[in-house]
Amino acid sequence: MSMEGKPVAASAIIDQVIEVFPNDLNPHGTLFGGRVMQIVDSLAAIVAKRHCGRVCVTLGIDSVRFLNPARRGDILVCMASVNKTWCTSMEVGVKVIAEDFRSLEQKDILSAYFTFVAVDDDHKPVEIIPVLPETEEQIKRFNEAEKRRTFRLAQETSHH
Amino acid sequence: MSMEGKPVAASAIIDQVIEVFPNDLNPHGTLFGGRVMQIVDSLAAIVAKRHCGRVCVTLGIDSVRFLNPARRGDILVCMASVNKTWCTSMEVGVKVIAEDFRSLEQKDILSAYFTFVAVDDDHKPVEIIPVLPETEEQIKRFNEAEKRRTFRLAQETSHH
Amino acid sequence: MSMEGKPVAASAIIDQVIEVFPNDLNPHGTLFGGRVMQIVDSLAAIVAKRHCGRVCVTLGIDSVRFLNPARRGDILVCMASVNKTWCTSMEVGVKVIAEDFRSLEQKDILSAYFTFVAVDDDHKPVEIIPVLPETEEQIKRFNEAEKRRTFRLAQETSHH
Amino acid sequence: MSMEGKPVAASAIIDQVIEVFPNDLNPHGTLFGGRVMQIVDSLAAIVAKRHCGRVCVTLGIDSVRFLNPARRGDILVCMASVNKTWCTSMEVGVKVIAEDFRSLEQKDILSAYFTFVAVDDDHKPVEIIPVLPETEEQIKRFNEAEKRRTFRLAQETSHH
Amino acid sequence: MSMEGKPVAASAIIDQVIEVFPNDLNPHGTLFGGRVMQIVDSLAAIVAKRHCGRVCVTLGIDSVRFLNPARRGDILVCMASVNKTWCTSMEVGVKVIAEDFRSLEQKDILSAYFTFVAVDDDHKPVEIIPVLPETEEQIKRFNEAEKRRTFRLAQETSHH
Amino acid sequence: MSMEGKPVAASAIIDQVIEVFPNDLNPHGTLFGGRVMQIVDSLAAIVAKRHCGRVCVTLGIDSVRFLNPARRGDILVCMASVNKTWCTSMEVGVKVIAEDFRSLEQKDILSAYFTFVAVDDDHKPVEIIPVLPETEEQIKRFNEAEKRRTFRLAQETSHH
Repeated sequence: MSMEGKPVAASAIIDQVIEVFPNDLNPHGTLFGGRVMQIVDSLAAIVAKRHCGRVCVTLGIDSVRFLNPARRGDILVCMASVNKTWCTSMEVGVKVIAEDFRSLEQKDILSAYFTFVAVDDDHKPVEIIPVLPETEEQIKRFNEAEKRRTFRLAQETSHH
Repeated sequence: MSMEGKPVAASAIIDQVIEVFPNDLNPHGTLFGGRVMQIVDSLAAIVAKRHCGRVCVTLGIDSVRFLNPARRGDILVCMASVNKTWCTSMEVGVKVIAEDFRSLEQKDILSAYFTFVAVDDDHKPVEIIPVLPETEEQIKRFNEAEKRRTFRLAQETSHH
Repeated sequence: MSMEGKPVAASAIIDQVIEVFPNDLNPHGTLFGGRVMQIVDSLAAIVAKRHCGRVCVTLGIDSVRFLNPARRGDILVCMASVNKTWCTSMEVGVKVIAEDFRSLEQKDILSAYFTFVAVDDDHKPVEIIPVLPETEEQIKRFNEAEKRRTFRLAQETSHH
Repeated sequence: MSMEGKPVAASAIIDQVIEVFPNDLNPHGTLFGGRVMQIVDSLAAIVAKRHCGRVCVTLGIDSVRFLNPARRGDILVCMASVNKTWCTSMEVGVKVIAEDFRSLEQKDILSAYFTFVAVDDDHKPVEIIPVLPETEEQIKRFNEAEKRRTFRLAQETSHH
Repeated sequence: MSMEGKPVAASAIIDQVIEVFPNDLNPHGTLFGGRVMQIVDSLAAIVAKRHCGRVCVTLGIDSVRFLNPARRGDILVCMASVNKTWCTSMEVGVKVIAEDFRSLEQKDILSAYFTFVAVDDDHKPVEIIPVLPETEEQIKRFNEAEKRRTFRLAQETSHH
Repeated sequence: MSMEGKPVAASAIIDQVIEVFPNDLNPHGTLFGGRVMQIVDSLAAIVAKRHCGRVCVTLGIDSVRFLNPARRGDILVCMASVNKTWCTSMEVGVKVIAEDFRSLEQKDILSAYFTFVAVDDDHKPVEIIPVLPETEEQIKRFNEAEKRRTFRLAQETSHH
């Protein structure tokens, strides 16, 4: 595998659909936040693995925003892609929208940013093939990922 | 909404990914067949709803074939699309492959054909907008769906 | 164990009961089809194992028919038995009815036919002890299983 | 419905089979006790409902004994029947054995006694149709149920 | 580890909280008994392990009493502690109450007594460090545990 | 209820224990991140409800850090408390450690910060009773919560 880079689209997930079942609801009758976190955690991990062809370990999740409640029967559409890679880590952005299959109306449900590190068989971090943003949207996310990382490091420094 | 027809691609799912967890295994250490049926049943129902914008009821499933066992850590890639519509019913074809995220090798796991009927608020069957196959592959599936339906009806007649 | 044969009743399940929980419902408030498939898949596999005393692998499922919706609180009664054996494969028929525990009214929910192959420790198919139908009903299913197999093989030939 | 009585066999479950999945294990690799309690609780409730055709509420569970550990791939065979009825309550006895589908060896896994009360639509206890033990075994359990009830009442008195 | 004893408080759980989800309900819309048994079984086992630092095996559960139904949105508060130890076995008492987070009203849901035995790596029972009751309440439970054991043994003798 | 304030300890959870089951593992044999997120999401929501006696809605989750992998049989100990309240929102901090019940060794597993808003019956945000930090540790967290909020707001501004 060449280390020149791999386009975002090669590992991105753009149309993962999940219908909200009674099973997925919290006691107030809306989609349980813990359930949607479980869904996007699995999804982000698959994108990370697809990008680098290795076992990836979640280091953290940042800026999870619950934007609207989803309801029974809504169809969740989940999107996830590698926003940026650094030496041994990468940011995977996740977005969930809910679609009413009758009216086709959509509303934003969740957005979140996962940080993964790729590891070898001894659980040591290994270098990651760089991601190559191609579209305008991908380049925007690539640049924002760097800002988020700066914020993250600044915040961690300020606490210790 | 015009009744002229809707292309296959408008409702098709082409990259639904699910990682095989320890949770998904049968006592022999391979992906539990009942689990994969649960996954594809949800998926086929979403495709049916997306195509006709209505509640859809599963009438039957035919020719489910388990082609290879999947294992812990495999990434399942599921595809589903409307193959053909008749007056109030439609056939949704489903295919599952497993991808090794390291070697990128793929193997076929399952194929199946679901028959749905669209219903109105009184649970009465309603007319479905015709599906329009566009690619060569879609046209092939469109024609095969008719043969499967003929077999199905012949078989049902022969039993009663 | 003699290879002369084993009666249907020795491995059949005739009264497997499951109450429909809120947990088992789809977004429309009826029993989720994927859930009932999971139940009958487990059950058919147990019947197959009981018949031949070996690990059995599901090859396929045919003619799954959803006959009526089941509701919260219904008691599902599941039946499964070996209909016919061939050299290394066997057909297991499954039927699910729902019983209202107050009125004792029953309605048919699902019927399906599973094909299993018995395997040895190296996952090689092995000969299966023949099943011996005894009642009129069992003999009818034995004969119909042969017809279904003929249809299945004809259908597979017609597609390739 | 006559109040003369209903035989034990009319509501008894004698062959409820469940295969032990990886999903059902505790961290030590044996069947999780909480999982088997969940299974038998559902089963006992169905037997109670079948006997009296009403919603039944669990008052208590006594003398649960875990007799042997079950393992992955074991086939659990569960039995449950009404042992005795009193005015508005009844005892349902449950037994679970594990069967090795290869050797057909069996071992006892669990026994337990459930007490249910039947209720009407206002959740008030209602009279239960008496159970009629017919076999020697059923008569033995009928008599033992009375002793267990005496113990239970004696114990409750001694604590308050 | 000294064999002098370990206070009850060292292993007790006094505030394990669980919200009742739609997922946890039986078909009648109240907390499923099998679900609450699963919760307390896990909890009692953790208390037993914490007390003796070893794998513990459940021998039995006695005097499970369902005192009131819990409903969707109730917050269950679970308590568990070692009541008494004998040579190789111990009794763990469990209590569950439900709290309405608005009114702060509480009602009793369940009480139960678990008997565990500690085992070594060969699954042989091993001596357990004695539990030391300190508060008045703990001493009361310590004494009652002995009475329950006497009842238990008397009952078992009377049946065989 | 007086609006003067409520101490942190009144709603805090300090010893929520959960044993890691085979069921909770990812394909690599360690605790699935999505599962632990589900656990802490439930827990944080209970603390929020307990603090303000109202339905609380999750707005976001920040700075989730996976500090070490947990393994099968580890006992997770979860802690959660209200760090700071603002007018209609509050921050709940969550920490998970894993304890080996044999060696009593502990390792940090996860830390995260949840932001909730309390709502009335019309889902409108309502004023929250202020939290009163009492211990040195609680005061430290109270102050840090303000810094985190500043970071959060700064970051949101920088993106729009």
